[in-house]
Amino acid sequence: MDKELIANIKSLGLDMINEAGSGHPGIVLSSAPIIYSLYANHLNIKPNTNWFNRDRFIMSAGHGSALLYSTLFMSGFNFTIDDLKSFRKLNSKTPGHPEISIPGVECSTGPLGQGIATSIGIALGEKILNSRYPFINFKTYVLVSDGDLMEGVSYEACSLAGSLNLNNLIILYDSNNMTLDGPTDNTFKENVRERFKTMGFNTYLVKDGNDLKELNEEINKAKKSDKPVLIEIKTKLGYGSLLENTNKVHGKPLTDDDLKQLKNKLGINHTPFYVNEIARNEMIKKINDRVSTIYNKSIEDYKTYVNNELNGDESKISFLFNKYNYNINNFNFSLPKETESLRVTNQKIMEAISNYMPIFIGGSADLNSSTKAYLANKFDITSTNYSGSNIWFGIREHAMGSILNGLALLNFRPFGSTFLSFADYQKPAIRMSSLMSLPVIYIYTHDSIVIGQDGPTHQPVEQLSMLRSTPNLDVYRPSDAKELVGSYQSIMANYKPSALILSKTDVIQKNTTDINNTTKGAYILKDSPNIDGIIIATGTEVDTVLKISEEIPNLRIISMPSKEVFKRQSIDYQHAILPQDKKKIVVEASSSYGWYDIADYVIGVDNYGVSAPSNDVLKYMKFDYDSIKEKIIEILNR
Amino acid sequence: MDKELIANIKSLGLDMINEAGSGHPGIVLSSAPIIYSLYANHLNIKPNTNWFNRDRFIMSAGHGSALLYSTLFMSGFNFTIDDLKSFRKLNSKTPGHPEISIPGVECSTGPLGQGIATSIGIALGEKILNSRYPFINFKTYVLVSDGDLMEGVSYEACSLAGSLNLNNLIILYDSNNMTLDGPTDNTFKENVRERFKTMGFNTYLVKDGNDLKELNEEINKAKKSDKPVLIEIKTKLGYGSLLENTNKVHGKPLTDDDLKQLKNKLGINHTPFYVNEIARNEMIKKINDRVSTIYNKSIEDYKTYVNNELNGDESKISFLFNKYNYNINNFNFSLPKETESLRVTNQKIMEAISNYMPIFIGGSADLNSSTKAYLANKFDITSTNYSGSNIWFGIREHAMGSILNGLALLNFRPFGSTFLSFADYQKPAIRMSSLMSLPVIYIYTHDSIVIGQDGPTHQPVEQLSMLRSTPNLDVYRPSDAKELVGSYQSIMANYKPSALILSKTDVIQKNTTDINNTTKGAYILKDSPNIDGIIIATGTEVDTVLKISEEIPNLRIISMPSKEVFKRQSIDYQHAILPQDKKKIVVEASSSYGWYDIADYVIGVDNYGVSAPSNDVLKYMKFDYDSIKEKIIEILNR
Repeated sequence: MDKELIANIKSLGLDMINEAGSGHPGIVLSSAPIIYSLYANHLNIKPNTNWFNRDRFIMSAGHGSALLYSTLFMSGFNFTIDDLKSFRKLNSKTPGHPEISIPGVECSTGPLGQGIATSIGIALGEKILNSRYPFINFKTYVLVSDGDLMEGVSYEACSLAGSLNLNNLIILYDSNNMTLDGPTDNTFKENVRERFKTMGFNTYLVKDGNDLKELNEEINKAKKSDKPVLIEIKTKLGYGSLLENTNKVHGKPLTDDDLKQLKNKLGINHTPFYVNEIARNEMIKKINDRVSTIYNKSIEDYKTYVNNELNGDESKISFLFNKYNYNINNFNFSLPKETESLRVTNQKIMEAISNYMPIFIGGSADLNSSTKAYLANKFDITSTNYSGSNIWFGIREHAMGSILNGLALLNFRPFGSTFLSFADYQKPAIRMSSLMSLPVIYIYTHDSIVIGQDGPTHQPVEQLSMLRSTPNLDVYRPSDAKELVGSYQSIMANYKPSALILSKTDVIQKNTTDINNTTKGAYILKDSPNIDGIIIATGTEVDTVLKISEEIPNLRIISMPSKEVFKRQSIDYQHAILPQDKKKIVVEASSSYGWYDIADYVIGVDNYGVSAPSNDVLKYMKFDYDSIKEKIIEILNR
Repeated sequence: MDKELIANIKSLGLDMINEAGSGHPGIVLSSAPIIYSLYANHLNIKPNTNWFNRDRFIMSAGHGSALLYSTLFMSGFNFTIDDLKSFRKLNSKTPGHPEISIPGVECSTGPLGQGIATSIGIALGEKILNSRYPFINFKTYVLVSDGDLMEGVSYEACSLAGSLNLNNLIILYDSNNMTLDGPTDNTFKENVRERFKTMGFNTYLVKDGNDLKELNEEINKAKKSDKPVLIEIKTKLGYGSLLENTNKVHGKPLTDDDLKQLKNKLGINHTPFYVNEIARNEMIKKINDRVSTIYNKSIEDYKTYVNNELNGDESKISFLFNKYNYNINNFNFSLPKETESLRVTNQKIMEAISNYMPIFIGGSADLNSSTKAYLANKFDITSTNYSGSNIWFGIREHAMGSILNGLALLNFRPFGSTFLSFADYQKPAIRMSSLMSLPVIYIYTHDSIVIGQDGPTHQPVEQLSMLRSTPNLDVYRPSDAKELVGSYQSIMANYKPSALILSKTDVIQKNTTDINNTTKGAYILKDSPNIDGIIIATGTEVDTVLKISEEIPNLRIISMPSKEVFKRQSIDYQHAILPQDKKKIVVEASSSYGWYDIADYVIGVDNYGVSAPSNDVLKYMKFDYDSIKEKIIEILNR
């Protein structure tokens, strides 16, 4: 029945694309036998349940969505033929690229490289969970294209996967030497399998991607591997089409003639969206028969663990299986009384959080020593012991972001740190966090030109704008320890990604800052009976403007640790603290871009910095205390 | 004298760091013999001249700046001891990371991975120039750290260098198994040399980075290689320091005690900034003696070429050696009369430009077929023939950006295209273009949610904000063919990076659009004796608002192809077209973030899109014609 099933998966995928009038037939025809073999014979899944211990499959080559949906349909996932007919239509269950909200889709994919890197986060997460909870033990499979492997983020993540020896990861590489524009002759001549060997992978070759026996044998080997695995599977893009092995079959529907001859070859009924129900039922039964024992054992193992280790109290580990918002208001933080760098305060708060929330894990892109975002009270994760909480990502900011996404998909609350200026490297991963609403915490220290001597490449200017303009991302730039705690309270209470921006330099612990007010995004820090102007500041600039307000009368000072959170407050609250008839001046050591929705004037930094000691940089950029004060006076006198 | 010179290069580098109170001694001590050998014995340079045919050296590990400056000083570049003493001070010739404006620095570096990827652009550029002008023939050397090689962008670029067989590239890999946070045991276990072999490199090993004989032998081999080269040079971070081989020596000045014992070991005078003038003179002489024949031959070759090929008229190739602004107003463009997709119009204009400007070259990240930014009138560049103008970058957006930077450093006017949503992948390279003010043209098509069915991963929303908030980058979003020509005129007349944003969908060729007005950034497209409101639109939205203005009276319609260019016009001009007392409404299919400096209201797209046919997406996102019209009416009635 294999032949009929593969034919039907292909024909459905092609029908979807032709019905939609757009899509990617090439990969449907090259990869159908691969994904069929995987679902029919290997992937431990229980369609339409929330079985946590299922194997994960990620379609990194997200343009293969039609193939994925038709396979999910044939495997018994909750899709109807009408769902398939709605491919690429509004609010359908079958969007143009796989989206996390769709049954059976583990991760949104589309931008090449993201899926494979995120899969490595899932594989790492499984290793960590397994070391803590032995009843969790599953494999992560990922289908990649040539394009995925050309993207730098896939190299970064795979190099780390090799270094951490994630032997629960199986990469299925649809190797067809063809991309959108043409053959890979000029662009991608490397020996991929050998490359992965040098990176600590076991690699296998399937010489003919249509040979199910070969496919199954190599996947079986992979499942027993002592290292992460890449299986290179030689295929032909658009196999069987009149355009087979050309780039023309990559991204456009087949012509009617081509579809017709192909269905003839496949020996399948020509009626669009024809389903061989006998074959489908057999596939569903095959999966169920194969997995039921494994499933039952998994449930038993879980129960045994709960009984033996938790006195039968499941609630103690329900956090593993649920997307919880956390109330951390009662966590025991020791707040500093003296001036302190926020990166230092942050480390203490993070360690406190990690004592309450074991799923709070993460690391840095080789900058622990500088960002201090490190849990010194926990162990490091290594290739031989995954039971720690600190991950060493190496100098791989981009993969760090994608891997954090994978960890968040397993309900971790992961964090990753680097310098704010290097947020640029992570933007594609940040966008995926935001699209999937994953509760990843991006921690950025060294948050302005004030870092000084390292110079303009290391001095962030426009990064806050980049982050704040990203939909569904909350950006926090607290001004002292209380606001930092408030930021974490807000972060943990909102199931979405956030960026936490921290100073390298010291900040004053202020009397009027307030944890609870911080969770409103902005609040009045200092007021005056008569208001000549309202100064809005964030982070380290709050201390500056408070001091200035001792020299300039009639100022209201607003601290705005999170503009996004503030904008979610009631209009009444927003207008109460920022009355429309008063001059509003933002002071922030960052690009003024994007502040004029609430400000009349912005005192910011709109050019790249220079290499010099901090005070010299600030003076040169006219962002020192005196320059800011003078500008405020000048604005108030206008 | 080798020993004395290396000792002096080290001691100067360390003195600089200690004087500055910050810097990176680890790499000074590990890499000094490498960079000394290179400058003394291999690099063809003529200090303090503009010799175009010199070898290029790029310090990709930009934190090694002190080492670079001390070597440049010892090699006779135009540095004084006071310059070295001013390391990391304001406006010095010795900033914290190498900057392009500094004598002897070929490329700004600092963010890891950028230097190596940019070097590959330089190496590719040399191949292209050499194939056109045989008198240009130099090598590109680059010093990389473990961190450079962990970054994905370095993999992307090196994989392409291997595929294009750039055998003029020599990577010197300072391999010391130590990064900022500690040993690379957990993070970077791969076999780097073997990995580069799989990517088409010849690789060599220097077992002891202090062994000059071995170093010179391997570099000599590399110079004759038929493939690009990686030389792995085993070193010890902080060699000779009390902190040798630990991460503690990476990024902090040595203690006085350590510096003292180290200078003892080196046998060098303890006076800070001591210079062994005899040794220095010998190094200068050595370089001069070695290079003078090569230099003279290079000048002769050039003259011969000019005489034989150009009838002695040097002016015909002066564009090769100068950073020219180009006036392309008289270029012969054939403008379409009918509605047309701007990506289609763009291809015709690009081909026209390429007929006049042979240095206008570039390619796409495997999206030529979709972006159409391809010179069909020119040849492709391949590993066996570099004389074309089209570069196939593969699916490597990030490396494409960095490589374009390298090409621009050789005075090309390079372009690279991808979809706007994938601009995210390129941000670090875009920032380097902007920091160095390199005239790279980033071409982005598929510029809004209107692309429809591919869904939210492929629909840009916040990318325009990211680009516009980047200092020193000009963003253009023209509304038809004339504005596209005007954008190119402005791009070519300004020696700086730009992003050109193009629609996939058709635009109307409008009567009132104007090439010359486009170069002002914004202008009145349609006016009214009485103005109830001013509508500002860009790109495809210009057609929408023009149509709406037929239904709503008393509107002034502004087309704003480039906000950055507009903001450089006189305040009078700005106020003339945007009077302060009128309601100003921006209409753009992109994030509203960043428009409120000139607009009172923004009708934009502030959430991720959905997968559906274009019209359904627009309706769903309330950005269809009727929704925009209703919003404008509602705003005007406020």
